[in-house]
Amino acid sequence: MKIGIIGLGRMGANIARRLMDADHECVVFDASAEAVSTLSDEGAQGVGSLDELIDALPAPRVIWLMLPAGDITEQTVETLRGKLGSDDTLIDGGNANFKDDVRRAEKLAEQGIHYVDVGVSGGVWGRERGYCLMIGGEQPVVEKLDPIFETLAPGKGDIDKTPSRATRDPRVEQGYMYCGPNGSGHFVKMVHNGIEYGMMQAFAEGFDILKNRNKEELPENMRYDIELADVAELWRRGSVISSWLLDLTSIALAEDNDLEGYSGKVNDSGEGRWTIEAAIEEAVPANVLSAALFTRFRSRSDNTYGEKLLSAMRKQFGGHVETPPDPKK
Amino acid sequence: MKIGIIGLGRMGANIARRLMDADHECVVFDASAEAVSTLSDEGAQGVGSLDELIDALPAPRVIWLMLPAGDITEQTVETLRGKLGSDDTLIDGGNANFKDDVRRAEKLAEQGIHYVDVGVSGGVWGRERGYCLMIGGEQPVVEKLDPIFETLAPGKGDIDKTPSRATRDPRVEQGYMYCGPNGSGHFVKMVHNGIEYGMMQAFAEGFDILKNRNKEELPENMRYDIELADVAELWRRGSVISSWLLDLTSIALAEDNDLEGYSGKVNDSGEGRWTIEAAIEEAVPANVLSAALFTRFRSRSDNTYGEKLLSAMRKQFGGHVETPPDPKK
Amino acid sequence: MKIGIIGLGRMGANIARRLMDADHECVVFDASAEAVSTLSDEGAQGVGSLDELIDALPAPRVIWLMLPAGDITEQTVETLRGKLGSDDTLIDGGNANFKDDVRRAEKLAEQGIHYVDVGVSGGVWGRERGYCLMIGGEQPVVEKLDPIFETLAPGKGDIDKTPSRATRDPRVEQGYMYCGPNGSGHFVKMVHNGIEYGMMQAFAEGFDILKNRNKEELPENMRYDIELADVAELWRRGSVISSWLLDLTSIALAEDNDLEGYSGKVNDSGEGRWTIEAAIEEAVPANVLSAALFTRFRSRSDNTYGEKLLSAMRKQFGGHVETPPDPKK
Amino acid sequence: MKIGIIGLGRMGANIARRLMDADHECVVFDASAEAVSTLSDEGAQGVGSLDELIDALPAPRVIWLMLPAGDITEQTVETLRGKLGSDDTLIDGGNANFKDDVRRAEKLAEQGIHYVDVGVSGGVWGRERGYCLMIGGEQPVVEKLDPIFETLAPGKGDIDKTPSRATRDPRVEQGYMYCGPNGSGHFVKMVHNGIEYGMMQAFAEGFDILKNRNKEELPENMRYDIELADVAELWRRGSVISSWLLDLTSIALAEDNDLEGYSGKVNDSGEGRWTIEAAIEEAVPANVLSAALFTRFRSRSDNTYGEKLLSAMRKQFGGHVETPPDPKK
Repeated sequence: MKIGIIGLGRMGANIARRLMDADHECVVFDASAEAVSTLSDEGAQGVGSLDELIDALPAPRVIWLMLPAGDITEQTVETLRGKLGSDDTLIDGGNANFKDDVRRAEKLAEQGIHYVDVGVSGGVWGRERGYCLMIGGEQPVVEKLDPIFETLAPGKGDIDKTPSRATRDPRVEQGYMYCGPNGSGHFVKMVHNGIEYGMMQAFAEGFDILKNRNKEELPENMRYDIELADVAELWRRGSVISSWLLDLTSIALAEDNDLEGYSGKVNDSGEGRWTIEAAIEEAVPANVLSAALFTRFRSRSDNTYGEKLLSAMRKQFGGHVETPPDPKK
Repeated sequence: MKIGIIGLGRMGANIARRLMDADHECVVFDASAEAVSTLSDEGAQGVGSLDELIDALPAPRVIWLMLPAGDITEQTVETLRGKLGSDDTLIDGGNANFKDDVRRAEKLAEQGIHYVDVGVSGGVWGRERGYCLMIGGEQPVVEKLDPIFETLAPGKGDIDKTPSRATRDPRVEQGYMYCGPNGSGHFVKMVHNGIEYGMMQAFAEGFDILKNRNKEELPENMRYDIELADVAELWRRGSVISSWLLDLTSIALAEDNDLEGYSGKVNDSGEGRWTIEAAIEEAVPANVLSAALFTRFRSRSDNTYGEKLLSAMRKQFGGHVETPPDPKK
Repeated sequence: MKIGIIGLGRMGANIARRLMDADHECVVFDASAEAVSTLSDEGAQGVGSLDELIDALPAPRVIWLMLPAGDITEQTVETLRGKLGSDDTLIDGGNANFKDDVRRAEKLAEQGIHYVDVGVSGGVWGRERGYCLMIGGEQPVVEKLDPIFETLAPGKGDIDKTPSRATRDPRVEQGYMYCGPNGSGHFVKMVHNGIEYGMMQAFAEGFDILKNRNKEELPENMRYDIELADVAELWRRGSVISSWLLDLTSIALAEDNDLEGYSGKVNDSGEGRWTIEAAIEEAVPANVLSAALFTRFRSRSDNTYGEKLLSAMRKQFGGHVETPPDPKK
Repeated sequence: MKIGIIGLGRMGANIARRLMDADHECVVFDASAEAVSTLSDEGAQGVGSLDELIDALPAPRVIWLMLPAGDITEQTVETLRGKLGSDDTLIDGGNANFKDDVRRAEKLAEQGIHYVDVGVSGGVWGRERGYCLMIGGEQPVVEKLDPIFETLAPGKGDIDKTPSRATRDPRVEQGYMYCGPNGSGHFVKMVHNGIEYGMMQAFAEGFDILKNRNKEELPENMRYDIELADVAELWRRGSVISSWLLDLTSIALAEDNDLEGYSGKVNDSGEGRWTIEAAIEEAVPANVLSAALFTRFRSRSDNTYGEKLLSAMRKQFGGHVETPPDPKK
């Protein structure tokens, strides 16, 4: 298929490459001329504006947005709304909030423009491994895009087949799924990331408990100096918690067992937050997913006002003094 | 009554004073001769050793220990076990783990020595306001000590009477309670402190959310610069969360609205930890009390190994770089 | 002052009564004619429609809405927007989301109508004790309403004076506070309720740990059968956690120590949810406040799909069978 | 090697089978004669008592205990302590608390008996996939047992090799690891299970949020009816959260998408609890791992006393009535 791709950051560029490797034609645009030029050198048709991109695509057009969620995506969708024609399809592969999808799809539908939201997992490994795709939109529209999704998805590979799936949608085993109406693709991706936060935090706490087992305060015969890079590697093999995140942990710890090259000030991308908001809307308890998010918040700050208030109360009722270090020392 | 008091830190000294104010005779000992001398000047009979203290008390003796929980209490109990006689009573008013009480009581009972565990709440305000006392031990032994407990407790004061208590133990309204067999006094005090951690953390989080409402990232028409010292004072008056901790918060914020004089590195005293262990033994969910404890742990450390591991995983799967600040800058 | 009151539920009716006790004139309306009639018998001027209410008030009018947050408040504000004139003031004393306040205030301002958001704490006790009021809006508008707020607030009473407040707003000590621009009143009230959830949950967990100390699985010498009604009463007296919520706990337990008259299926009113959403917007960790909310969610459901999934995974990897009870038995 | 195996439950029997498949000689004992007879039919040397087992093994003997953690393991170790000789080795492959290992090892060492603690992960799949082994004890003793561990471990299989491990212990890549002195094997296994609880709970919450997206209370255009069995299968393919637990989830959901065959009353095995206790000893925050544990506690009970207390407080301050259902209806 011929497809326009807007946004050539790490993810967008690799998506273009994976499509071109399978002989899809990509018309590419990015605010950075350099990014466009790099992809042109690799076989894409680079263009210098949204108008050129629209002109370069045959109607009905298919355009894949791969931009940061938020203002830039919003503006680009608005601009394209004024330029695209009936039956054109706009795919948002970024990390949009599913509520924005619903709103955008309704507005674009007024002009006959189709909207498809695609949650994309796979990160920097996706070009090689393929991307896991969660897709929301009108089903007939999504089905026409099947060649694109099939190419981007990882395919069956050598992953063990799950029993009892004979009557189910076989595309799921290829690594892409039609999830339902607009927003559902990004909704499923959002929950995926929420789970990701929780799993990461489970590993973080576990390795922290292993690491701190060598503290001087502990009784000497119950203190251990455990080789964490080896533990991570070990657990990849036959344990209940073997997982891709553990594979990555093992790689990271083999390089730097003490993790001294990392700040531990951990960003969050929006989807972890929206997952908690969705849980609250649904009245579903989400203790683990919220705790994982809050750990990231706390990791980026110094002692909070709240913690200082704890110190202040303790001083008031118990005379405990927890003063800040003298900045002169 | 005549009573020995061992340990003249802030709590022990004030307990002696409150007892002397009510004409009890106090024989006092502390490792610090200065502490002993101060109390002697205020009317106590100061002694220079445990042996002198024992000699100065009429049999059957009553001795109140007010020492830091842990080794020093353990050693002192052990030493006294070798020196006290049948029917003497040892009271531990410190913050012992209730399991240590059970063990100690059983061992002292072999020699006919009685043991009473008393959880004491009230902090630096106790001398004036009185101490809330939670008492465990053999009931007849505890009842003989009633004059001591009655003196130390706050009394009814002008606190509103709770309806429907006509048939219940009236001493509870004086601020002291016989909780049950050995360990139960410290068990109830332990849970008290667990709740205290949870309540403090509820206030801490709430004030943090108020404080951060003025962040630049927020939409301008939903940003507020709220006077927190006033909020604390306000909520003391007719609100559902009015409480002594809020009274103290109001005092602290009136002095220092930004809490810049506090480190926010918050200690925990053991009882918060034991509360979680008790919850786990009983299979009772304790999400709030444990989260309050963990916040204190985190407040005392820099970015944890676990947080660095999150950064490391994020780099592996997404190419996100969260490096530590250059120490040269 | 002469004031209109719309919504005569428990809160609205008591607010009218407290105002009338202080010789304010109340024009009252409610969808229930019976509610209107009851208040008329007590001295209010009852009316049968919004139009009548508007006619009965001198311009510039002051109207207090005391309706359930959500659709009914929204509709009533919209209706009044079409009927009120410039310089009239609409007060929302319900539990609105502060974001709705901001939106409504901006829309009403287009027609010169003032909007004041007031968070009201005090519950069924408020008529007697007074209401703690958190007020947002244009400062001059709020100041003109001072007689109303002063009447509704509890006043200084016999609550201890906080030191160091000499230079601060004295109205705060009366129990009402101007918090800032529109939304800030409900924002402060929202956080108040978030803290309330956290404090309640701290008590709930603590009493649960006390209650379950008598479980058969525990070692016999560390099992206690503690009189919880007495513990609640005791802690009111000199302990660090003394609070109004504890006073209420003592009342409830004195009546029903085993709480058999309560379902434990606990509702939440919206403000607990919005508090977490605000924390997430601000990137403030709120572990305790969120755990308190999630406990309420869980309390209202049977075993969740998530819990069943845990059972399912355990069966898959360990052969553990956690089947549902046979419904025939 | 020739090895004695005590305890022929699911795990013990499969360990014996995997050893026999590799031509190790197994002398087996169990309290159930039937279990012994089954294994004898498959080639083991069945015995009828501990004494017979000891007689059947050449000195220095190697005995593997595979019993439920707790009393039965304690008693068996004690009995064997009286019967084994110097240089014999006792391996505990059960789920012991590492503190019990330390105590037992010290006591057995007095008689020259070696003790090795082995944490075993792999569940019912282990016979086929191999067991991931975490080993603690004296290093020379552990090394002599290498043929046993090598056989039980999964081996390298076709799992991707982790870069940068060239200089590290190659046995780790086979799936077994010498972790350090006594207790460290079970300590690492304990943390493994703690992480397992956290990961499982992350999935449980995520799927719960997906499942409840179809609730009637939600706005109709943001409600989705998502095919969860397909989502689980999808995420196995190229997503960041692909993992063995997800493989198992996909199997379970393919069989029973609504999980109606599961109670959701989820047991915990001790190790989740000890992980939190270890975190507390080390002052490491463990919000996620503790929340996962508490969810299991809650899943096994009806509405708690704590939740009823919340209802009771709400009734007191707000007149909210949350009464239990009428049992007659």
